[in-house]
Amino acid sequence: MTQLVSPMKTLGEIADFIGGEMRGDGSVSVSRVVHPAVAQGDSDLAFVLSPKEASIFESGKIVNAVVPADIENLPARNQIVVSRPRLVLAKLTQLFERPVHVAPGVHPCAAIDPTASIGQDVRIGPFCWVGPNSRIGQGCRLVSNVSVGAEVSVGDHTLLHAGVRIGDRCEIGSRVILQPNVTIGGDGFAFVTPEPGSVESVRKTGEVRSFNTELIRINSLGNVIIEDDVEIGAGTCIDRGTLGETRIGRGSKLDNLIQVGHNAMIGGNCLIVSQVGLGGSSKVGNRVVIGGQSGLPDHVSVGDDAVIHARSGIVSHVPERAAMIGIPALPLREFMQREVKMRRLPNLIKELKQQMESIIEKLNSLLPPK
Amino acid sequence: MTQLVSPMKTLGEIADFIGGEMRGDGSVSVSRVVHPAVAQGDSDLAFVLSPKEASIFESGKIVNAVVPADIENLPARNQIVVSRPRLVLAKLTQLFERPVHVAPGVHPCAAIDPTASIGQDVRIGPFCWVGPNSRIGQGCRLVSNVSVGAEVSVGDHTLLHAGVRIGDRCEIGSRVILQPNVTIGGDGFAFVTPEPGSVESVRKTGEVRSFNTELIRINSLGNVIIEDDVEIGAGTCIDRGTLGETRIGRGSKLDNLIQVGHNAMIGGNCLIVSQVGLGGSSKVGNRVVIGGQSGLPDHVSVGDDAVIHARSGIVSHVPERAAMIGIPALPLREFMQREVKMRRLPNLIKELKQQMESIIEKLNSLLPPK
Amino acid sequence: MTQLVSPMKTLGEIADFIGGEMRGDGSVSVSRVVHPAVAQGDSDLAFVLSPKEASIFESGKIVNAVVPADIENLPARNQIVVSRPRLVLAKLTQLFERPVHVAPGVHPCAAIDPTASIGQDVRIGPFCWVGPNSRIGQGCRLVSNVSVGAEVSVGDHTLLHAGVRIGDRCEIGSRVILQPNVTIGGDGFAFVTPEPGSVESVRKTGEVRSFNTELIRINSLGNVIIEDDVEIGAGTCIDRGTLGETRIGRGSKLDNLIQVGHNAMIGGNCLIVSQVGLGGSSKVGNRVVIGGQSGLPDHVSVGDDAVIHARSGIVSHVPERAAMIGIPALPLREFMQREVKMRRLPNLIKELKQQMESIIEKLNSLLPPK
Repeated sequence: MTQLVSPMKTLGEIADFIGGEMRGDGSVSVSRVVHPAVAQGDSDLAFVLSPKEASIFESGKIVNAVVPADIENLPARNQIVVSRPRLVLAKLTQLFERPVHVAPGVHPCAAIDPTASIGQDVRIGPFCWVGPNSRIGQGCRLVSNVSVGAEVSVGDHTLLHAGVRIGDRCEIGSRVILQPNVTIGGDGFAFVTPEPGSVESVRKTGEVRSFNTELIRINSLGNVIIEDDVEIGAGTCIDRGTLGETRIGRGSKLDNLIQVGHNAMIGGNCLIVSQVGLGGSSKVGNRVVIGGQSGLPDHVSVGDDAVIHARSGIVSHVPERAAMIGIPALPLREFMQREVKMRRLPNLIKELKQQMESIIEKLNSLLPPK
Repeated sequence: MTQLVSPMKTLGEIADFIGGEMRGDGSVSVSRVVHPAVAQGDSDLAFVLSPKEASIFESGKIVNAVVPADIENLPARNQIVVSRPRLVLAKLTQLFERPVHVAPGVHPCAAIDPTASIGQDVRIGPFCWVGPNSRIGQGCRLVSNVSVGAEVSVGDHTLLHAGVRIGDRCEIGSRVILQPNVTIGGDGFAFVTPEPGSVESVRKTGEVRSFNTELIRINSLGNVIIEDDVEIGAGTCIDRGTLGETRIGRGSKLDNLIQVGHNAMIGGNCLIVSQVGLGGSSKVGNRVVIGGQSGLPDHVSVGDDAVIHARSGIVSHVPERAAMIGIPALPLREFMQREVKMRRLPNLIKELKQQMESIIEKLNSLLPPK
Repeated sequence: MTQLVSPMKTLGEIADFIGGEMRGDGSVSVSRVVHPAVAQGDSDLAFVLSPKEASIFESGKIVNAVVPADIENLPARNQIVVSRPRLVLAKLTQLFERPVHVAPGVHPCAAIDPTASIGQDVRIGPFCWVGPNSRIGQGCRLVSNVSVGAEVSVGDHTLLHAGVRIGDRCEIGSRVILQPNVTIGGDGFAFVTPEPGSVESVRKTGEVRSFNTELIRINSLGNVIIEDDVEIGAGTCIDRGTLGETRIGRGSKLDNLIQVGHNAMIGGNCLIVSQVGLGGSSKVGNRVVIGGQSGLPDHVSVGDDAVIHARSGIVSHVPERAAMIGIPALPLREFMQREVKMRRLPNLIKELKQQMESIIEKLNSLLPPK
């Protein structure tokens, strides 16, 4: 069985691991790291992220704490003082990680096709299916109710949470994490009308002059490639390419409920927040950040290191290192300037009106009486 | 087996139950309540919600009807006259409820860990998994293909529809309804760069001057707590807290495809419509209403009884009882005033131009000819 | 087993099937159609969609290609020249279709209720459940981990991908495709307060003057009807009607992660792009196109052949053949005119100011010195 309680670690060991300065008794052992509001007793380690949480210490319940260097004089007996606390938090959560429960081996209620290849130390939970000619690398974990289709390849130490769907011929890298109910390899949304249809007509003429009386399906013959160290959030859907691939680059992280259209190409180390929609054949560079609920149309590209604010509606190519915001999205500075300009307009007009009135008055004083 | 046809009830009984006034023969029995367009014959009871549906009665097929007090003279033989018809509809649908089919007992194709505890009268359908040390309260129903991880606690009379995923250590209250493919307890979307990255740089300088060359994962050690009487819609995803919890308060109702980030705290009796995104550590008060496709950023809070219009982009704290709308969201009145002001601008400028021209004319008449 | 490699076809056969003109050796056989970047060797057929891809031919690796008539002189030995290439692509992907793997017959790890009726040549994969009194038509395929509730009817040759959920009493047509993790027949999001609540108060007064202290559930007694030839994308959720039905009309195509509220009525041959939200009782005509991330409120209707741009926020009835864009959505022309007008305002005001200054100067020259 998965270990359900973390082993004890001494504060001294922890201070060394996270690169903090130990103040107090480093030989004290703790079993979990918690929010200051929850911490109580000798075996809890409170983690303080911001000065707002300092007041919680007045309860006197907190014995051990990790505190940022800029928060002084907290009344906890043993403290580890750190800088860049979010980075320290990452390290602490690695030290105290509570991995998802999957029993070792293959659960008797799993269905593994006889032609599938399962690596060493793989754990497969109940009601998981691995299809023909698929390959699961060593150290992988499939939690429960996971579907892996035919001819799929999964690298080493990859984690597929409950309800993950991987379609035929898709390729998943190593150390990938797919959160629950992720869909990899649904068919692309691609249809064509025999004659030019309503959308083509609007593009050309601004009006609907032709009609979608027939919709012909373009089948998706391609696949999806998820490179190493990618993480994909719950409910996110990544469609397969039409002829080629849809690709998520190495180390990129996608949040929940994101749509990635067919043939989209996402670079490496991107951060894409929940409910973003990336259109078919869209192209996202490396290290791009896209805020939640933003949208990228079909065939549009975003350059390396661009940062796109939440709820932005991108409409055309975004150059590298651009910071974008708004609907339609503009460079941050331009957006701010325009906002300021527009907000000033009513007052500017008011002033003009007043000036105008004083002019008319003066003018009337000059004109001969009627 | 679940009862698939409703029992007959007399109009008199129904009138009593819904608090309506019986006109006609109260001894007539009906077996279902339907939309007026579908009603035909003696055993159907048509429910009329709005005056628009009155014309359907001209077909003469409707024998029995529930009608709002303000609709006069409908040609149906037996009528129950009511006020506040949506409330009456709620009562009627309780009377004629058609509960989801789940056979009594535990289906032979379910997998219950031997250390799990299953209450009295629990129904568990095929391909459901209940993990180690988890507890399912009495009267619960798990429809099919449901995953309940390790150390999960589920209260009494809770309904988990097909494909629901509940991660390790999450706590679900009593009388909770989770619609199909809901995910509770996916990991939070939390990463940190060793040095300040592109987003921090944009926040400070308005420009991308540093780069996300490395992304370090912050593991989610916390859980999700769903309080009693909560309902959560299909495909909605609720991430677990980093150290603490993500919490949905008692009686709150969430629609489909909603994102709730890690450590978010939702109060009681909220109504949150589909495709809303609630950021990490966001805080929503009690009885808050949030319209569809709206977004709330990380760490932002909304006060009790606020009403947020559909498609709003909240950017900062919303006070209690505020009515908000727009992107960025403004108080409803301010938004309306600004809209009116902005729409007037082109005409105001036109008027100014005309005045200006007449001034110039007059002025020229005063100036000596060149 | 499903055929995992496509059979060879000659270029001459292909040219006939897609209606193209053969240039070169029509007796050459190919086994797959690929993106030009991937094509190499005698058995690959490169498909060229746009002139941008012409440069790829310089590698000299492409032997066989389908090329649009307006791209001249590509250096490939054998070419099929076509017009309307997207339509040709559809035909080619039919010719080389790679259907999802599902083994013939019913998998031993599937659970079929004894009262369910399963047609000829149906394929049902592992961990699929078909509930009591449900009917699966001939030639259907259920991939894996699919839930079909009680009294469901599914037509012929319908494809239910992994993780699809179909609730009790829903009706699915023939030749329907439901992508992975689609939910059909979740309960509608319908609640009522005993007394008028906060939303009603805002509608009447613009302010929150009453409170949602109690939320009463309106149960969903109705169902969902999916007509023939519909396709629905991964993760999309379609709620059941309250008393009547929610209906998706014949031939309509819905993309991923779309929300369709209870009692919504969608016409035939619509194209609805990902992450759109359609409110309860909304009504969409025939052949309507709705761009990604757009929203339609409760009870609002859209006429036949309307085209709605991505990220539009519809607020009131859309007439037939209208092209709409924006938040709130306006007719395309009106939106464009208003945009142009608003963008001109700052300059117009600047001009007015300059004129005003020159007037004041002239005026001062006329006024007697103080």
